[in-house]
Amino acid sequence: MNLKIAVLPGDGIGPEVIAQAKKALYAIGEVYNHEFVFEEALIGAIAIDKTGKPLPEQTLNLCLNTDAVLFGAIGDPKYDNNPNAKVRPEQGLLKLRKELGLFANIRPIKPYKSLIEASPLKREIIEGADFTIFRELTGGAYFGEKFLNEEGTCASDLCEYSEEEITRIAHLAFKSAQNRRKKLTMVDKANVLETSRLWRKVVQKVGEEYKDVALDFLFVDNAAMQLILNPKQFDVILTENLFGDILSDEASVITGSIGLLASASLGEKNALFEPIHGSYPQAKGKNIANPIASILSAAMLLEHFGLFKEANVIYKAVEKAIEFKVVTVDLKADSKFGTNEVGEFVSNFI
Amino acid sequence: MNLKIAVLPGDGIGPEVIAQAKKALYAIGEVYNHEFVFEEALIGAIAIDKTGKPLPEQTLNLCLNTDAVLFGAIGDPKYDNNPNAKVRPEQGLLKLRKELGLFANIRPIKPYKSLIEASPLKREIIEGADFTIFRELTGGAYFGEKFLNEEGTCASDLCEYSEEEITRIAHLAFKSAQNRRKKLTMVDKANVLETSRLWRKVVQKVGEEYKDVALDFLFVDNAAMQLILNPKQFDVILTENLFGDILSDEASVITGSIGLLASASLGEKNALFEPIHGSYPQAKGKNIANPIASILSAAMLLEHFGLFKEANVIYKAVEKAIEFKVVTVDLKADSKFGTNEVGEFVSNFI
Ligand SMILES: CC(C)[C@H](C(=O)O)[C@@H](O)C(=O)O
Ligand SMILES: CC(C)[C@H](C(=O)O)[C@@H](O)C(=O)O
Repeated sequence: MNLKIAVLPGDGIGPEVIAQAKKALYAIGEVYNHEFVFEEALIGAIAIDKTGKPLPEQTLNLCLNTDAVLFGAIGDPKYDNNPNAKVRPEQGLLKLRKELGLFANIRPIKPYKSLIEASPLKREIIEGADFTIFRELTGGAYFGEKFLNEEGTCASDLCEYSEEEITRIAHLAFKSAQNRRKKLTMVDKANVLETSRLWRKVVQKVGEEYKDVALDFLFVDNAAMQLILNPKQFDVILTENLFGDILSDEASVITGSIGLLASASLGEKNALFEPIHGSYPQAKGKNIANPIASILSAAMLLEHFGLFKEANVIYKAVEKAIEFKVVTVDLKADSKFGTNEVGEFVSNFI
Repeated sequence: MNLKIAVLPGDGIGPEVIAQAKKALYAIGEVYNHEFVFEEALIGAIAIDKTGKPLPEQTLNLCLNTDAVLFGAIGDPKYDNNPNAKVRPEQGLLKLRKELGLFANIRPIKPYKSLIEASPLKREIIEGADFTIFRELTGGAYFGEKFLNEEGTCASDLCEYSEEEITRIAHLAFKSAQNRRKKLTMVDKANVLETSRLWRKVVQKVGEEYKDVALDFLFVDNAAMQLILNPKQFDVILTENLFGDILSDEASVITGSIGLLASASLGEKNALFEPIHGSYPQAKGKNIANPIASILSAAMLLEHFGLFKEANVIYKAVEKAIEFKVVTVDLKADSKFGTNEVGEFVSNFI
C-alpha cells in the first residue's frame, strides 16, 4: 500500500514522540512492503512563531490532500497564562479538526496487564476494563460563538448542536458497540442543558436502528464518578465535545498513564491520529516523554486503512516494551529508558 | 440560639435522609439549649405532582424568610428519559439557588481514616487528601439562555459570566485558602473558552489582594485526571458551575462514597445545606440510603451560624458511626444497618 501521511509534530514533546511513531511506520513499511511518504508541516505555537498563524494555509492544504494526518501535540504556557492573547496554538488544532470535518474522536481505554499496578486505582477495579469513548469533535462550546464585551467584564460561549451532528457520530458509536459488547452509554446533562436533551432524543432515535445494542444514559457528573467506581460497566461511551474532553482525560488514569493513550479523529473524507496527551512543555527536549501514545496512534492509522495485521504487530511490540519494562519514567520512576530508547525497542521488535 | 430552618425533603431518598439530619439537630438543640424550628415545604418532582410547579411560591417565600434551608434531594427518572418534558424537578432547585442568590457552593472532600479501604483508589493516593471545592452556583450554562428551534432539530445553551460573578466567589475561595494551606487552584478551559479566559483574568486580579495564597491554574481535562492521580496536591479548588458539578462528583470517589459528602450553598443573605448526592430513586423507601451526607449538611449549617462546638459534636458522632461500622450498605456490603439506624446512632451519640 502507498500512503501519503502529513506529519504535524507541533509543540513541546510533539516532535520527540512523533519521531518514534514514524520509526515504527518505517519499520512496518519495510517488513510488509508498504510505502509511507511523510510530509511535515507546522502547527501550533511553533507555527505562530514562524508564520504568525497557528494553522498556516500550507499546512491545511497538505492535510486536505493526504491520506491521513499524524499529529503530535500543541500548546505553550506562554499563551495559557495570558488571557489577552489573540492568537493561540489551540486555534490551529480546532481549525484543523473543523476544516477536515473530523467529527468523531475515538479514544480506546484498556489497561495493560503488566501495568495494572501503575494505576492509582485498585487492581480489582480496573482489571478487565475495556471501553471506547466516542467524543464529538467539531461542535459544542468549542466552536459556538464566543463573546467578550468591550470593557472585558462579560464573556460568553455558546454550545450548539444540530440533529445532524449528533446523528452521524451516533451511528459510528452504535456500529462500534455492535462489534463489541453491544452496550452504549450516552453521557449528557439532560436535566439541565437543552443541547443534552437534543442529544438524548436523537440518540434514542438512532438507537431504534440498533436494537441489538443496549442503550443507557448517565448524567455527566455521575459518569465522572462511575468511571472510577466501576469502569468495567462501560463498553462504548458517547458524548459531546467538552464532556468527552474531560471524561477521556479522566479515564486515562485507569491505564496508569495518559502517555499510553491514542486517538483517531475521523471525518467523511479525512482522518487524523494523535495521542490524547498534550504538549507537556516541562518535558520538552529531555528525552523523557512517553512515545507510546504516539506510536499507538500510528497503529490506529494502519487499522484505519485496513492494515490490521500490521497494526497488531505494533500493539504486540508495545506490549513487549511494557512487559520488559522498556518504558519511560511516567511508568517506572527509576527507568533508565528515554523516549528514543522506547521507540527504538518498538521499531526493532517489528 | 433560635433558628428557623426551612426543610425541603424533595424526591427519592430526600425525605429519609433529611429525617436523620433533623434528628441530629434536635439532639444538638436539647443538649446545647438551642431552639431549631423546622418548617417543611415542597420542591422537585413531588412539588410538580402536587402543585404543577417544581418550586411553588410558598416554598420560595418560606426559604426567603428563614435563617437557613436544609435540602434533601430532587430528581425523578420519569423526567430524565423524557427530553420533551416542559417542567422538570431540577428547575425547582436551580430557581431556588438563583432566587436566594446562592452563588457559592462549598464542597469539602476528606476521606475518613477508617474508610480508606472503601475507596477504589489506593491508600497511598488518598491518605492525607483534604481539599475543598468552591463551585460557582448561579451562573454559566445552567442559567444562560436556552434555545430549541421549532422543528426540534437544533439546540443551544449559553454559558455566560460577568466579572462581578467571578469576583465575589473568588474572594470567598481565597479567604478559605488563607485559613487552610494557602493554595488555590483555578480550574478552567482557558485554551478554548472565552468565559474561562475571563475567569482566569479576574481570579488573577483578585489574587493580588491575597499575596499569601499561591495561585495556580489547571485545564479542566487535566484537573479531572489530577484529582485521581494525586488528590493531595489540592487545597482549595475554584471553578465555574458545570465544571464544579462534574469535578465534585468525581472527587467523591476519594472518600469511598458520595453518600458521605455535604455541601453549603451561600449567598449574601441566604444559605442552603445539602448532600451532594442526588435523589437515588432506586433506593427510595428501602431504608438503605446513607444519611451521613445529610447529617453532615446539618453540621455545616451549625458552623455557618458559628456553632462550631455543636458542629464538631456531629462530626465526632459520624466518625464514631463509621469507626464502629454502623454504616449503610454503600460502605459495607453486608451491613445490617439502615438509614434509620445510622441516624439513631448519630443522634444518640450527641
Ligand atoms: C488542546 C485542546 C484544545 C484539546 C481539546 O480540548 O480538544 C485537547 O485537550 C484534546 O483533548 O485534544
Ligand atoms: C440536580 C442537578 C441539577 C444538580 C446540579 O447539577 O447542580 C446536582 O447534580 C448537584 O450537583 O447539585
